[in-house]
Amino acid sequence: MTDARFFAHPAAIVETDQIGAGSRIWAFCNIQQGARIGADCNICDGCFVEKGAVVGDRVTVKNGVSLWAGVVLEDEVFVGPGVLFTNDVYPRSKVARDGCDATLIRQGATIGAGAVIVAGHTVGRFAFIGAGAVVTRDVPDFGLWLGNPARPAGYVCTCAQRLEFSRSGDREVARCRACGREFALRNGQVTAR
Amino acid sequence: MTDARFFAHPAAIVETDQIGAGSRIWAFCNIQQGARIGADCNICDGCFVEKGAVVGDRVTVKNGVSLWAGVVLEDEVFVGPGVLFTNDVYPRSKVARDGCDATLIRQGATIGAGAVIVAGHTVGRFAFIGAGAVVTRDVPDFGLWLGNPARPAGYVCTCAQRLEFSRSGDREVARCRACGREFALRNGQVTAR
Amino acid sequence: MTDARFFAHPAAIVETDQIGAGSRIWAFCNIQQGARIGADCNICDGCFVEKGAVVGDRVTVKNGVSLWAGVVLEDEVFVGPGVLFTNDVYPRSKVARDGCDATLIRQGATIGAGAVIVAGHTVGRFAFIGAGAVVTRDVPDFGLWLGNPARPAGYVCTCAQRLEFSRSGDREVARCRACGREFALRNGQVTAR
Repeated sequence: MTDARFFAHPAAIVETDQIGAGSRIWAFCNIQQGARIGADCNICDGCFVEKGAVVGDRVTVKNGVSLWAGVVLEDEVFVGPGVLFTNDVYPRSKVARDGCDATLIRQGATIGAGAVIVAGHTVGRFAFIGAGAVVTRDVPDFGLWLGNPARPAGYVCTCAQRLEFSRSGDREVARCRACGREFALRNGQVTAR
Repeated sequence: MTDARFFAHPAAIVETDQIGAGSRIWAFCNIQQGARIGADCNICDGCFVEKGAVVGDRVTVKNGVSLWAGVVLEDEVFVGPGVLFTNDVYPRSKVARDGCDATLIRQGATIGAGAVIVAGHTVGRFAFIGAGAVVTRDVPDFGLWLGNPARPAGYVCTCAQRLEFSRSGDREVARCRACGREFALRNGQVTAR
Repeated sequence: MTDARFFAHPAAIVETDQIGAGSRIWAFCNIQQGARIGADCNICDGCFVEKGAVVGDRVTVKNGVSLWAGVVLEDEVFVGPGVLFTNDVYPRSKVARDGCDATLIRQGATIGAGAVIVAGHTVGRFAFIGAGAVVTRDVPDFGLWLGNPARPAGYVCTCAQRLEFSRSGDREVARCRACGREFALRNGQVTAR
């Protein structure tokens, strides 16, 4: 189950041919035909990727995560162990609906261990969803959200450390204590300076 | 691992012969001897069904769910991915107790992704447990419960849409905006009209 | 995959030789080289134990649990199904850090189904983490913690039953109604008498 492009553990099931170079698929994964996974990804033990799910480049998905049709992970997303996605907000057994509810996790975002992302929402660039949080709304770029249901608890840097904003003229600004990157906050939106 | 009656993925372990016609058992499942699964069920990847668990007909169990002895799922139940059941409310390692604490999920109920059902409780007919909720009490028929611990947040229709009740004489009534079904609410109990 | 010392299910992957006598490793587990597991443990279906994780004697780990480098489970710990550990409190994809954040679960503690233990913390001896709780702080010996984030909700006996303390001189004392063991509480610390 290995070829020149990517590695698949012998105990993984890989039916798609759309996996990028350098990606690794670990034991007890089931990657279905039609699933799309980019380059240099790490898909850890026991993950399931369904036809219609799309994973970008340099994405990490830790153990036991299922990615359904309708779930899109952009580049450099980190998905912790046991994170749960959904694609139907009104599920009943044996009731089929047309299409599915979409989930978009934007570039560089972190989804903490065991968080639940209710379908129909977007998690912004470099946002940080705390372990065990239950996301039921859209999360802005760099947003730190915690709890059940998840609520805003601040903002984080590209490097994941919390940002402390202070007023500067007509906006608020922060400089990361860990890495020195600078950010501005206006109307609830954080941008890198 | 297929016979005329049901389908089992080659990577599933199926030791029971009590699986009904038309049911499908997917990869990395382990269905133990003595487990009982009805007809036309869909038991998705990585599920575990223990001797003593009972699953009705037309039940959907999404990825990564374990059904222990003492867990009963009636017909048409939907169990989302990563839902957790239990059967011992005072667990300690290497301490055996007599019997186990039971869980009953009644006909047509939905258990959202990642919800936890603490043993010893019943989830009523067509109830809807929100994603990530932690159920520590009995949930009535058609009840919508959310949060940790799960609390009542309203009622849903058979089709899973929220119901809006208004007073009509000595009771409250609702007509589903999606499917038109009608319900009555009296003393916290919803019934179809 | 069995030898004189321990049992491994044929569908388990066991690469370590550091598993104690009498332990059982069930289907779809992946026990990596360098992982350490003591004697008389029960590691249930779909668990993952990484190099650098340490499991004591007589430990129970229910289905679908991953133990990472940095996680230590002392003797007689009970880990419920779907419990999530972590070892990096600032995860980003493709960002390596030196070392990892440690987690210590002390002797006899119970971690309820689906609880999340954020790395960098200790759960005390015979503590009881409720199902679905999200632990973000240290938990004292015999502490009962519930919710998201987990908060103190009382204390439990060695046998897992709740303790009811009453004042006796300069401290509070309790006698377990189930097993008769006696405890003292002073400055938030419970000790067996």
